[in-house]
Amino acid sequence: MQLFEKRVRDSFGHQSFMANIGATMTTVARGIAEISFDFHERLTQQNGFVHAGAITSIMDSACGYAAMSVAGADTDVLSVEFKVNLLAPAVGESFVARAQVKRAGKTLSVCAADAFAIRNGEEKLIATMLATMINVVQEKS
Amino acid sequence: MQLFEKRVRDSFGHQSFMANIGATMTTVARGIAEISFDFHERLTQQNGFVHAGAITSIMDSACGYAAMSVAGADTDVLSVEFKVNLLAPAVGESFVARAQVKRAGKTLSVCAADAFAIRNGEEKLIATMLATMINVVQEKS
Amino acid sequence: MQLFEKRVRDSFGHQSFMANIGATMTTVARGIAEISFDFHERLTQQNGFVHAGAITSIMDSACGYAAMSVAGADTDVLSVEFKVNLLAPAVGESFVARAQVKRAGKTLSVCAADAFAIRNGEEKLIATMLATMINVVQEKS
Amino acid sequence: MQLFEKRVRDSFGHQSFMANIGATMTTVARGIAEISFDFHERLTQQNGFVHAGAITSIMDSACGYAAMSVAGADTDVLSVEFKVNLLAPAVGESFVARAQVKRAGKTLSVCAADAFAIRNGEEKLIATMLATMINVVQEKS
Repeated sequence: MQLFEKRVRDSFGHQSFMANIGATMTTVARGIAEISFDFHERLTQQNGFVHAGAITSIMDSACGYAAMSVAGADTDVLSVEFKVNLLAPAVGESFVARAQVKRAGKTLSVCAADAFAIRNGEEKLIATMLATMINVVQEKS
Repeated sequence: MQLFEKRVRDSFGHQSFMANIGATMTTVARGIAEISFDFHERLTQQNGFVHAGAITSIMDSACGYAAMSVAGADTDVLSVEFKVNLLAPAVGESFVARAQVKRAGKTLSVCAADAFAIRNGEEKLIATMLATMINVVQEKS
Repeated sequence: MQLFEKRVRDSFGHQSFMANIGATMTTVARGIAEISFDFHERLTQQNGFVHAGAITSIMDSACGYAAMSVAGADTDVLSVEFKVNLLAPAVGESFVARAQVKRAGKTLSVCAADAFAIRNGEEKLIATMLATMINVVQEKS
Repeated sequence: MQLFEKRVRDSFGHQSFMANIGATMTTVARGIAEISFDFHERLTQQNGFVHAGAITSIMDSACGYAAMSVAGADTDVLSVEFKVNLLAPAVGESFVARAQVKRAGKTLSVCAADAFAIRNGEEKLIATMLATMINVVQEKS
């Protein structure tokens, strides 16, 4: 495992909220991150679909880790802002968010993510995000 | 309790994801909704702050219920899209999202929400959302 | 020329603001629209770059016409909302916005657009948009 | 006139695009900026309403100058991103964008703007923006 992947996976492992929603990091590569979770009733909204907030959460983390994968080794990444369009109800057996860096700057990165529902082995696009992330150089302790 | 409040609170009660993150609906009025949760370690990201996705989730639900509070009695509300700016780390004992309808249309509503961290009794603005909601007339069963 | 292209080009021809900024519709296809303009000093901001508002304007129109190209023949398209990330200064001899429909719904469409600066024959990505458009059925006169 | 107001008005005076659309800066105060223009046919879209891009342009500039009004004296402000909701057709004799700083950071500022159409002396909210601006320290020449 390369150093950037180790850093990303270590940080993801510290996101208790990702564990709470059952999310795992399924892919990390330079400028790319993919996070998935299986359907669970505790993630639903009033119609039994997965809540937009749960889908947004894995898109946000995927964007952050895509940005971190191309940032300096002493750099943490925080979300400045994001915009999400919900394209279809989140109905499926599992869900995946795939993020990629659109532009990596020294301070700010812009990332895009798509989220898919997987149902009977078929993927359907259910949401898309455009996000701005900021690199924060961590002080040595 | 007025009918619109009962409808909003009933729907909120069916959002399992809100229960999962410990959220309660603290206020509903015409065009206004407020949702809160207490800090819990299971909601955190890598730095121990509350994850942007958890904050976004209560802002999204608050916007949806603000819109529902002024919609017709047979109408459900779904999120079309939202944009969130994260303004400060989500550090506090509890968190509250306050949403209001900015424009209520027949089909689409535009809502704004602010989220605050409460720490030692003081509120701090930590995030702000601008969202579009769609009214969906429910078919009689 | 197919009917949808004629409808799109006729509507674009009625956008005086596009003429004002020197914009032309360079491509229309099913679900796709491209609008371009050449650099002119009257389009600049304080640093001599093209103003974000001018770039946004052609991205917005391109998104709208991409949506119109797949909408019904009696349908006009209006912008509900859009979000733009400015990725690099708008410096170049000409500028082009390329939009595509990401999801075409009966009422709402979601479109994405990228804007490029062209300088010495090379294209550089300078901005990206994620937009929601609404189909409005026009009344017969 | 205070120094920050002079800096803001000087910079605005260099935005040729604002002159092109007939815009004037009607108010500047600490953390606040207001930009207006009168209706002109050259600003319209296919229905004769003012183009969303023209309204967005004055909201964007107003957000930038609101941010500049509270930034350091050697600082220029550029737009990172913005999101606009169009709430009603831009129909009126004149139009005004009012921006205020929601959070001023050392590097990034978050601003909100509302745009109004003025018709027969009455103001109507037609659009709202949430924007992120970045402070760029200018090098001495």
